[in-house]
Amino acid sequence: MSNTDRDDGGGAQQGGAPSPDALLPTLDEEQLGVLRWVGREWGRVSGDPEAWRRALPVDPDLGRYPAPSEILPVRFGRFVRVSPVGGQPSGVEATGEDTRPSRLGRVGSGVRHVLLGAPLRSTAIAYERMRKVVALPVLSADALSSVAYGPEAMLAVLVLGGASALSYSVPVAATIVFLMLAVGMSYRQTIRAYPHGGGSYIVATANLGRVPGLAAAAGLMTDYILTVAVSVASGMAAVTSAIPSLEPDIVAIGVVVIAVLLAGNLRGVRQAGVLFAAPTYAFVLAVFVLVALGLFDAADRGFQPVAAPRLTATEGVDVLLVLRAFASGSTAMTGIEAISNAVPAFRPTEWRNARTTLTWMVGLLIALFAGTIALVHLDGVVPSAKETVLSQLAHRAFGPGFLYVFTQAATAAILLLAANTAYNDFPRVLFLLARDNQAPRIFLRLGDRLAFSNGIILLSVAAAAIYAAFDGRTAPLIPLYAVGVFLAFTLSQAGMVVHWWRLRDRHWRKSLAFNATGALLSAIVFITAGVTKFTEGAWFAVLVVGLFILVTTRIRHHYDVVGKALELHPHAVEVPSRTITPPRSEDGAKRTNAQTSSPEPEAPTEAQSEAETEETPEEIHPLSIVPIATLDLAGMRALAYAASLQQPVLALHISPSEDEAQRFREYWREWGDHLPLKIVVSPYRTIVAPLVNYIESLHHQRPDLTLTVILPEIVVRHWRHRLLHNRLAARLRRALRPLPKIVVTTVPFHV
Amino acid sequence: MSNTDRDDGGGAQQGGAPSPDALLPTLDEEQLGVLRWVGREWGRVSGDPEAWRRALPVDPDLGRYPAPSEILPVRFGRFVRVSPVGGQPSGVEATGEDTRPSRLGRVGSGVRHVLLGAPLRSTAIAYERMRKVVALPVLSADALSSVAYGPEAMLAVLVLGGASALSYSVPVAATIVFLMLAVGMSYRQTIRAYPHGGGSYIVATANLGRVPGLAAAAGLMTDYILTVAVSVASGMAAVTSAIPSLEPDIVAIGVVVIAVLLAGNLRGVRQAGVLFAAPTYAFVLAVFVLVALGLFDAADRGFQPVAAPRLTATEGVDVLLVLRAFASGSTAMTGIEAISNAVPAFRPTEWRNARTTLTWMVGLLIALFAGTIALVHLDGVVPSAKETVLSQLAHRAFGPGFLYVFTQAATAAILLLAANTAYNDFPRVLFLLARDNQAPRIFLRLGDRLAFSNGIILLSVAAAAIYAAFDGRTAPLIPLYAVGVFLAFTLSQAGMVVHWWRLRDRHWRKSLAFNATGALLSAIVFITAGVTKFTEGAWFAVLVVGLFILVTTRIRHHYDVVGKALELHPHAVEVPSRTITPPRSEDGAKRTNAQTSSPEPEAPTEAQSEAETEETPEEIHPLSIVPIATLDLAGMRALAYAASLQQPVLALHISPSEDEAQRFREYWREWGDHLPLKIVVSPYRTIVAPLVNYIESLHHQRPDLTLTVILPEIVVRHWRHRLLHNRLAARLRRALRPLPKIVVTTVPFHV
Repeated sequence: MSNTDRDDGGGAQQGGAPSPDALLPTLDEEQLGVLRWVGREWGRVSGDPEAWRRALPVDPDLGRYPAPSEILPVRFGRFVRVSPVGGQPSGVEATGEDTRPSRLGRVGSGVRHVLLGAPLRSTAIAYERMRKVVALPVLSADALSSVAYGPEAMLAVLVLGGASALSYSVPVAATIVFLMLAVGMSYRQTIRAYPHGGGSYIVATANLGRVPGLAAAAGLMTDYILTVAVSVASGMAAVTSAIPSLEPDIVAIGVVVIAVLLAGNLRGVRQAGVLFAAPTYAFVLAVFVLVALGLFDAADRGFQPVAAPRLTATEGVDVLLVLRAFASGSTAMTGIEAISNAVPAFRPTEWRNARTTLTWMVGLLIALFAGTIALVHLDGVVPSAKETVLSQLAHRAFGPGFLYVFTQAATAAILLLAANTAYNDFPRVLFLLARDNQAPRIFLRLGDRLAFSNGIILLSVAAAAIYAAFDGRTAPLIPLYAVGVFLAFTLSQAGMVVHWWRLRDRHWRKSLAFNATGALLSAIVFITAGVTKFTEGAWFAVLVVGLFILVTTRIRHHYDVVGKALELHPHAVEVPSRTITPPRSEDGAKRTNAQTSSPEPEAPTEAQSEAETEETPEEIHPLSIVPIATLDLAGMRALAYAASLQQPVLALHISPSEDEAQRFREYWREWGDHLPLKIVVSPYRTIVAPLVNYIESLHHQRPDLTLTVILPEIVVRHWRHRLLHNRLAARLRRALRPLPKIVVTTVPFHV
Repeated sequence: MSNTDRDDGGGAQQGGAPSPDALLPTLDEEQLGVLRWVGREWGRVSGDPEAWRRALPVDPDLGRYPAPSEILPVRFGRFVRVSPVGGQPSGVEATGEDTRPSRLGRVGSGVRHVLLGAPLRSTAIAYERMRKVVALPVLSADALSSVAYGPEAMLAVLVLGGASALSYSVPVAATIVFLMLAVGMSYRQTIRAYPHGGGSYIVATANLGRVPGLAAAAGLMTDYILTVAVSVASGMAAVTSAIPSLEPDIVAIGVVVIAVLLAGNLRGVRQAGVLFAAPTYAFVLAVFVLVALGLFDAADRGFQPVAAPRLTATEGVDVLLVLRAFASGSTAMTGIEAISNAVPAFRPTEWRNARTTLTWMVGLLIALFAGTIALVHLDGVVPSAKETVLSQLAHRAFGPGFLYVFTQAATAAILLLAANTAYNDFPRVLFLLARDNQAPRIFLRLGDRLAFSNGIILLSVAAAAIYAAFDGRTAPLIPLYAVGVFLAFTLSQAGMVVHWWRLRDRHWRKSLAFNATGALLSAIVFITAGVTKFTEGAWFAVLVVGLFILVTTRIRHHYDVVGKALELHPHAVEVPSRTITPPRSEDGAKRTNAQTSSPEPEAPTEAQSEAETEETPEEIHPLSIVPIATLDLAGMRALAYAASLQQPVLALHISPSEDEAQRFREYWREWGDHLPLKIVVSPYRTIVAPLVNYIESLHHQRPDLTLTVILPEIVVRHWRHRLLHNRLAARLRRALRPLPKIVVTTVPFHV
């Protein structure tokens, strides 16, 4: 956890490939040195390791005894004995059952098993690689599906300027096509440079620094959340264009769709990639047929555009309107970066396959986008609130029959798939942020099914909230969308420019030129979108990005502080104030020399080691405190446990009055007065406060001591019985938590 | 806690006086014998108590060091050093401050201080005794205020039979007066027999057995809840009779009134008894003047009753109607038992003062009740939904002027005071039930202000719920009311009959006769109310009583099981399998003989002591398990702590793969491999389940071992940082809770 300053500069080495092993940090040579030093100090006084091993009263390999699963009903899953492999010591492997002992838990686990499938081993991750014909539909669904709302968003702005403004659609679309080409070329460079996955976050962080990286991550993450929301909204529009009666229920249906995506992704849907190929290919096919038929029709009339219906202009046609149309239309490019993020998901040679796939994708995207716009222009279609542009085109080309329904169904399906792309990428960005200590560590955890469950859940909740907040409509979401996407594009490609400048390998000039063009164009779109759509919602996206940078910086700061605090501090233990001897070995072996030859211990020096920095046993100066209410079996066990530690023990009793205190003292004497007892009179009848006060006072008296508070706790079987017992142990534990150097031990007593 | 079979037969000895000391059970001779035996076994092996004392590294009296309050900002309140009194050892006393360290907690404590007053010492309880002239208004408010709704309830039934039925009011009232006299005489006997407080629960339990006692308690407690609800409803009726515009808001106002009663009683309002005398005396005065004026008027017209207005009879006049009127009217007696419950609240000689007060009270009650009924009869008043009978009488006698308002205000005030009586008694009954293990122990606890806070809160919530559920109206509550009250009366007085029969002291025949009469009459009312009002709500009261008996019996059963489990089992420790030596004394004293002369320890016999029954340190066979994720400072401290216990230690690491396991093993070797390490591979990436499984397997391997699981836990200062750390320690603690013989130790690390 002390690797907070991991160098991500290499990029190509670290990459974006998630691994289940990220939780155990790698120690560098310096850290290993510290570890060795600490170990030497420990070894100076602490006796023979072999003696500690002999003293173990159990067989850690669980070998000599029958496996518990054979002799006992399974309660917490079971262990599988694995035979030694390649000279590794034979081990015990846990199964994936994470069931709680309660009946409810078992039912829950069963439901989860049915919904999400059986747990997957970490080693299964290697098999989840994709062929190109599978990767293309899965990874390009986001980009290609943008054709379903990008042109529409552009036209929706132009139409405000009336019919004359609509004629600007062709030049604006041409600009966007050029942009697609430039950005696509730019990402080809990224794939080559970052074969382990070069998402915008990685590229920007590695080349531009931490804050630009965070900005890129913020852009990406808002992008992914909005991709889900916009794709679902747009898919719903495709459905309601065909079946208008569903219109009132789109919010509810959309939320259900997001829930299904959630469940599917928690299951780990990448394995279903083959199934997912269908909608993308169907959509591509449908749009191609549509465009072909439309062009055929148009050729009949000599490519003379049909006049658009009369429109009342609500705004004048000016540069601002055209720029806004451009910014809206450029949302047709969202998702173009998906392949560069997911390079490691390809089959080897990953980067080569990824590049080829990217080229195919950009080709398809441009074809679909250009074809759609051309058809809109030729057919004189105008956007309507009731029916999507694509649906209008399909109606004109196919009439109301099978082909129309097929087109709408394929559109809805690819939009769903696009949302699913976000489910692959959003958790991966969170994983990378968490690995760099910029997001909570829970996002590092791979779930049962090798999916980043926590990130998937967060994405679903955020997307569903935004979708519902905007009543399931696409149009108002577009302004929020463009800003985040093009912020990430810009930073990613600016990062690539720096990368090539630093590297200067073969072809670096050409690569740099491509990336610089992409960066420049993306920046123009980003600024255009941010400025022209600021009041329409872009302000919100900007605010979110700012907050994101703030919060992640604070998180990183916290982890840095914690990591610093958790570092080992090699320090010589001055006086062996206490001799730590291995416990007596079970087979009657003689005690080791460490004990017999140890010098007579001395009192610890005053105020030594007031902080929580003990690294060796002899630095721990113990005192056990046993709060005891009555001398019953639970209390007696706690006392016996305390005494068995062979540390100084002080029993503590809280009494409401001096008379009662006297009575307890007599019982204590009857018992034999074997341990020192202190009675605190609490005339106000509180129990927790005087105990905590007293323990804190002891701590201030001797800050070098480690106080172990040993609490007898009655554990009942049914929750309803909890009400019948004071939860003193839990309350004390909570009250003692903030105090330093106080170890809390619970001795449970089950009834 | 093992005194579950405490003999309550004496009654006079145990009494109903609550004391703050009830939490420490008294041990009888047999239990003391067990304690001594256990102590002897402990002493056989466990070394010199003096050595344990010398080994203490701190001064338990906090004497040699400055008090922490002098050197440190006060955090959890402070300690006050008290000088030795009467040869008692000098001690440390906790102050009443129970503040949590958080800022919110400090604000809350301040608000509480203002609302409820400063905490009171337990010793303050002795001063809260009442003189007769104070006790009379405070304790008889409940009974006297019943005059405000009892006659009305009776007339409300009779009026259903039309004007002719109203003529039955005089004979029915006469019967009720006779009943009052008989029950009053009966309670005089109770006071003499139970000078320490003879509530129905105590008398019924002592003489009739546990279940009748519980039935009486159930009756009493429903009575008290309904007293609050009915009194508040009736008080509201008195107010709305004078100010009809308040009618729509009575529910809200009534709930606020109950909240004020709650706050006042949490403050401990008994000290304000003098203030509380006023309303009762004012009410008595007002009704007396009213009756006197009314009789004077009536004397003018030769005591000729004014004809009641024409009424349409909705029911025929039959025996059932009259009986129902009788049952409703007898609610005028509720509260008559209050004095017998509260004998210890009187000044000495308590029982004598209580009897005198009871006699006064019954005299006043009969006078007010008879006077009211006589006046109603003479003035021809009929009950109305808009105005109470008492208000009508006052209007006739006084007109709308000051005297009328005074009467209504006094009525409202005494009804509030009556509700307050329930606040004195309800928690006391709960206390007695809890003392007999028939209610949760939280009701034993005296709050800061010497009030049974938990009982007070429960009463308020229940009364407010019922009040609101019945829309703040009195009439529908009456049927529920009578059943509980007379059930308690009947059982209490039947218990007294048995008491006198068993005792047969001087005058026993006379006392028995009085009580038998009271019991018989109460039983008649109980049966009448239960049968005639069954469908009107009495069924609910019967159901509640049944459920109450069921739940309290289950609670008692649970406490019995727990008490049995917690009993010490004296058993000889066969083999001193482990030598417990007192730790080294700090002043360098030589180790005691216990260690040097101890025999060479042997391995514990297989499967010895599988249950949680260890009573001496040498019965504990220890093994510490340290789950460790990384070798950082927190983990190292946990290892150092474990090793410092000088018990066998096993470090446990969960690894997602064999490769990662190998990596951790290498770090471990770098450190020096000082302790035995076991790595469990968890290919499904779960952490808690494999840890718990493994620990459970160790337990099954050697069930005699006490496994101490030592968890390093990172404690953050702000709650918002908690999200950034996996709550592994807490999750493990929860998962390990149900397993036997597993001690959980948390080694906190504060960042």
